[in-house]
Order: sequence, then structure tokens, then C-alpha cells
Amino acid sequence: MPCPEPPSQPPRIPDERPAGAPTGHPPAATADTSDDAAARAGLTAVAGPGDPAMGALLDEHGAAAVWQTLRRGRTPPAPPDARGGAADRAARWRQRAAGVDTDALLAAAAEIGSRLVVPGDPGWPTQLDQLGRERPYALWVRGTRDLRHACLRSVAVVGARAATAYGLHVAADLAWGLGQRSWTVVSGGAYGIDAAAHRGGLAAAAPGVAVLACGLDLSYPRGNENLFADIAARGTLVSEHPPGAPPSRHGFLVRNRIIAALTPGTVVVEAGARSGALNTARHAHRLHRAVMGVPGPVTSALSAGCHRLLRDGAAVCVTNTDDVVEQVGSIGTDLREAGDGGAVGGGVLDDTARRVLAAVPKRTCAGTASIAEAASTGIDTALSSLGLLAAAGFVERGASGWRAYRDP
Amino acid sequence: MPCPEPPSQPPRIPDERPAGAPTGHPPAATADTSDDAAARAGLTAVAGPGDPAMGALLDEHGAAAVWQTLRRGRTPPAPPDARGGAADRAARWRQRAAGVDTDALLAAAAEIGSRLVVPGDPGWPTQLDQLGRERPYALWVRGTRDLRHACLRSVAVVGARAATAYGLHVAADLAWGLGQRSWTVVSGGAYGIDAAAHRGGLAAAAPGVAVLACGLDLSYPRGNENLFADIAARGTLVSEHPPGAPPSRHGFLVRNRIIAALTPGTVVVEAGARSGALNTARHAHRLHRAVMGVPGPVTSALSAGCHRLLRDGAAVCVTNTDDVVEQVGSIGTDLREAGDGGAVGGGVLDDTARRVLAAVPKRTCAGTASIAEAASTGIDTALSSLGLLAAAGFVERGASGWRAYRDP
Repeated sequence: MPCPEPPSQPPRIPDERPAGAPTGHPPAATADTSDDAAARAGLTAVAGPGDPAMGALLDEHGAAAVWQTLRRGRTPPAPPDARGGAADRAARWRQRAAGVDTDALLAAAAEIGSRLVVPGDPGWPTQLDQLGRERPYALWVRGTRDLRHACLRSVAVVGARAATAYGLHVAADLAWGLGQRSWTVVSGGAYGIDAAAHRGGLAAAAPGVAVLACGLDLSYPRGNENLFADIAARGTLVSEHPPGAPPSRHGFLVRNRIIAALTPGTVVVEAGARSGALNTARHAHRLHRAVMGVPGPVTSALSAGCHRLLRDGAAVCVTNTDDVVEQVGSIGTDLREAGDGGAVGGGVLDDTARRVLAAVPKRTCAGTASIAEAASTGIDTALSSLGLLAAAGFVERGASGWRAYRDP
Repeated sequence: MPCPEPPSQPPRIPDERPAGAPTGHPPAATADTSDDAAARAGLTAVAGPGDPAMGALLDEHGAAAVWQTLRRGRTPPAPPDARGGAADRAARWRQRAAGVDTDALLAAAAEIGSRLVVPGDPGWPTQLDQLGRERPYALWVRGTRDLRHACLRSVAVVGARAATAYGLHVAADLAWGLGQRSWTVVSGGAYGIDAAAHRGGLAAAAPGVAVLACGLDLSYPRGNENLFADIAARGTLVSEHPPGAPPSRHGFLVRNRIIAALTPGTVVVEAGARSGALNTARHAHRLHRAVMGVPGPVTSALSAGCHRLLRDGAAVCVTNTDDVVEQVGSIGTDLREAGDGGAVGGGVLDDTARRVLAAVPKRTCAGTASIAEAASTGIDTALSSLGLLAAAGFVERGASGWRAYRDP
């Protein structure tokens, strides 16, 4: 049985990287961590999300320096490969920055129980770094779970808003099956497939991740307000937009890259020929993630996009949870197997977690105390590591303790 | 426009090969043509269809010699690579041959308006020669059309007997569309998808080809008797079995290789996980023909076989006639215009963004100013749209400006 209950204190994985140094990006050497975070909070209110010009500036100068420059009403130096119009854009940033109060933003976020996660934080999902200069400046996160852990073993389930009863059924069923196997479902917050996927995951008591295209204090669409509350209580709400930011048409498209980048694979359940869900699939493809399509009746216009993906060989045909896990599970499986041989490191597990994993029995269950003893750690440390390992799908709670997770 | 009316004299394609010399097989040098045909008529009543041991003998000695040997109660020499049991098998052939009256067979065939077509005949579908030693010894053919001609431009449409209403609808619709475009539909004679495909083709006044697993004087299943009469009148009934031969379970599987070999491509419309239609797909795959699968609801057991083919990459996903013709048609004659911009585009972008996207060159790079001019927008608007389009994965920055994103 999976262990759906989130640990009361979400475990934090010690990060091997020096604080403040985003993987694969030049360290913002001068930035004090809290300055960096405050600056990034402000930047989410100033620049359009994923703007590669801003990304280049951050890589070059660090967030604090860019933010200070804008706040002082100056124009940041254009990146070496900047194109025409850079000055206009910088002027817009400068104007907007003048009106932003980062303390107020952070306070508004705290008021709704949300927090800022920035590159270099232990909870930063480093898989987003593959977005390069289109990496989010920061993420506003609401919920008790650690976003990075939650997404280690996750699948994006996306599709049309105007879904059919068939699509809603399949989305909920797939998500439920994934939840049952301790896979986190990541999706947007729209009606239709997104909502059905979240509901299916919640029905399996599996905390999901909803990536929204507006501030986390807003419920858009309004009819999903209760669903968002449930996800915030048991899973995670995520946005690139600061509190108060309204949704925009462009925002949804740009948001899709985050859904694709957070997860090792994206399933398109139903999509018309021009659905936004195909945009998520395209991002996933570009990021070399698994792209999966659910077939449906050829007589249904809402399956046309999925069939197009399948026909073009851009997606693998999946019909149930087993099929999906077969596509994305290799990473988890490989890591699990490698765990015994000690090769699991790869930036995912730290030494302690690896020791604790090695101490968890494969068939029988063991109590926390005996695992701690075998791993030569304190009980608290063992418990924290076990929480992480459970969230990431390496171990599960059995009737009388912990054991290695086995695929059903 | 298709030409559904069969010409009063079926056209005969001049054959480049010397009469009596089957393509790719050693010429049966001693065989007089009519001796060869009579011998092959007899062999269809004596050896199981597609027996590679018989095929090897025919390659080696020619049909007339093999038949004479059997009729004289002698055992034909075993082929060099014969397996154990060759003697037993030859004994069975010998016993059966003693009871066969080839004149009576040919007379019975003529009585129901059928005739024998043998390798080397101008009407022999030479694509069957790719079956090698499993090539039919001969085909019994009923109908006014030239079989070879009819199959030059043909598609096999196959599937489950116990089809759903969805499958029957799709099969008939596909076959109708193919018929409208002058494609011949080839299938078996079973209830379900086979019959629906034939009915769809007939509705488009397109003469189809039904490959049966019994003598052409028998109607199996009986309920399709009228359908077979229609096909005989307007299309072609084909069998490897002589008049009077009852259907056998094994016969259906062996028959499937002919359906696959006659056509450049096979579409599986509906198939359970162990459907015989998958056997036809396997034959088609083996013969390097196009294999196509029609998707359906993942909740339908009758689509499980199709989805399996798609998931394994053994079949291409097809949803309508256009998709099918794209797989089997010839470039220039049948292929549709290249896409309208692919699976993404139109609906998700606003007018301005779409205009800007259209102004971005596909191969070279263009600067913001020239894109703005081409899109008839201001530079600011163009820049803002380009930022969105880049973040959404439609365009990318090249060495000297913007260009359309190309999939790696």
C-alpha cells in the first residue's frame, strides 16, 4: 500500500549545490540569499514570465543587481545578444518596478499561506533549469508539500477544457491509478480534463500539483475554487505570478512550459485539433520528456489532437495507468534498482537518504528506530529521509513499518 | 471522380514476363500452361494452403511434374531443406491426389462463374509472390474484374467479428471514403468489420475483394450470402480453396496472409487483444506493407488490439480516409497538401500573435523591425508577441534575429 499521508513536517533534501547557485547557471555571486529572493519576488511582478531577455540578464548579473538597477530607475545593461527593442522592454520593466513593493507581495503571499521558492532553494525543482533562459524567475507555492519532492515521481495529465464525458472519465481514472501508485499528478487549473485529473488524484488521497496562470490568491476559474482549496490543503498550488496577478490569455500558454518541465512525462487525455494541451505536449517534446496521448473515438473532435500526436509519432499511445508508468517509470525504476548499488546519487538523493534507503528492508517492514540504527542516523533524520523517500516513491509504509516500494 | 462502373471487358495488363514463368521463381520449364493450371487446381485440393514444403517442390520441379508424381502414386523428392515428417506429408498428398478430378473441379468452378488464376497468368497479382514459398498454388476467383488490376490500388480493412456499433460505423465510413476515391477495399467474409467494410465500399459503388477461407460455391457465414452475391456481381471473391472445400479454423489464419499480401496496406478497425485481425496486421508487417490502426475508446475491449499495435509502434494511427490514403497513396497522386501549420497554432493565439507568427521566417532569421513591418504592427507589439511566442515555444532566437521554432 502506498503511504498517502504527507508527513507533518515536509522533509527537506540537503542540496549539494552552494546556496544561491542555480544548477547550470552562473552563480549570482554578489547576491545575498534573501536579497535574491526579494528581488525575484519583485521580478515576477515586473517582467512577463519566462522572458528570455530577463533570463539572460539574471544569468549575467544576478537577480539582486538587476532588481536594484530597475528600482533605481536605471536601465540594466542589455545582454550581449540582445535584439532590437531591448531598450523599450527595459523601460517597461523600470516603470513597473517603481510601483512594486516586494515586502507587500511577500506579506500578501504569507497571508494566504503561500511562499516563494527561488532557484538555489533546497525545494526548487531543479528540473525547471532545463528551461534555460525561460526558467521561471521564482515560483509562488501554496501547500504543505515540498514541490521538488512531489515532482520527482510525477506525471502531467492535461487536456481540453470542453472535455467529453469520456475524457473526464479517462482523466479521473488515470489520475486515480497514478495516485494509487504514489505518482503525483501535475496539471493546470482549468475546467474539464485538468479538474478531472486533480479530482481523480485526490480520490486516491494523492496530493497533486496545480500550476496556475494567475496569483494564488485568485481562483480562476471561480468554479474550481473548492478544488484549489483541496489541492492547497493536500497538495501544492504553484504560479509564476505574484499575488493579485490576474490571468491572461498568454499566461496560459507560457504556464504550460512549467507543467511540462516539472514532470518526466505528459499525458494528453483529450485535445481538439488546436487545443492548448498540444502546446504542453510540444514543450514536453522539446524538453525530451515522455509525451503520451490517450486515443478516443475517431468520431470525436475532442480526440483529434491526441490522434494527430499519435499519427505524427509525437506521442506514445497510452490507455491506462500501466501504460503511463511504463513510459515514465523507467527513471523511478532505474533509480530504485540503482539504489541498492549506491549509484542513485545523481543529484536526487543525498548521502543520508541513500543510507536510509539501503537500510529499508525489501519484503518485510521495519520500524523507524531500527532503520535509523542500521543507517547510523538519528531517529529524526531517519524519519525525515523516510518522508522524502516515500514521497519520491522509493519506500512505502507497510502494516508494521517501512519497506521498499514495489510496483504492483 | 472515381469510376465505379466495372468496364464490360475487364482490362488486362500486358505482362512483361514470359507466359508461365512466375516472377522470382524458377520457371517450370517443362510445364505446358494448361497442364500447369490443371496441376495447380488439383494441388489446391490436396495440400494445405501456403504449405512451404509444397511451395519448395513447386519452385524446384514445377506444378505439372509434382502433380503427375503424386497422381502416379509416387512420392515427390523431398526438398533439400525438408524437415522431419516430409514423408508422412507426401503420403497424405498422394492419397488425396488419387481422389481428385481436376476437370470436375474446373467444371464446378465454371458452373458458379469462377475461374482459376495461376502464377504467370496476366491477371495473377504478382504482389503475392512476396509470400515466397507460402505463395498460393493458385487462386479461385469469382467476379468480372481483373484481380491484379483491382488490387493495384487497394487497402485491406479488417477487424473483429464481434465488432461494436462504433467499429461497424468506422469500417463502413472508411471503406465508403476509400471507394469514393477509387480505392479497392479488400477484406475477409466474416460478420462484423469485414462485412461492414464491404458494405461501405459497395455503397460507394466501388467493387471490393473478399478473400474467403472456403470454396467459392459455399457461403460462410450463411448470413453473408447476399453480400457475397453482391461482391461477386460487382467485385471479386477469391479463395485458395477449390469448390466444395469447407472452412476450417486454421484456414482463416492462413487466409489472412493473402489479404495482407494483396494490398499495399492493412487497416485494423477494431480488434480485441487476441483478434485474428492482429494476425493479418502481423502478415502485413512481415511483408513490409503499411499497417494502420484505428483508435477507439480506451474503455472498449474491442479497441485494445488496435491500441496495442499503436503503442508498440507496429501500426500508424489513422482516423479517416485521408489518413489511410496518406499511408498507402503515391506522392503526387494521392497525398494531401502539407499541413496548415500543424497541431498547434490558430485557436490558442490571438490575432496579433498569429500575424506576428506568420511573419516569422521558417529557415532564415528576421529582425524585430522587419517582422513588425510584415505583420503590420508596431515594434513594441511585435516584440511583446515575439516574447510570448518564444516562451510558448513557437519561435526562437537565432544568430541574427527570430525564426520559427523547429523540432529537434
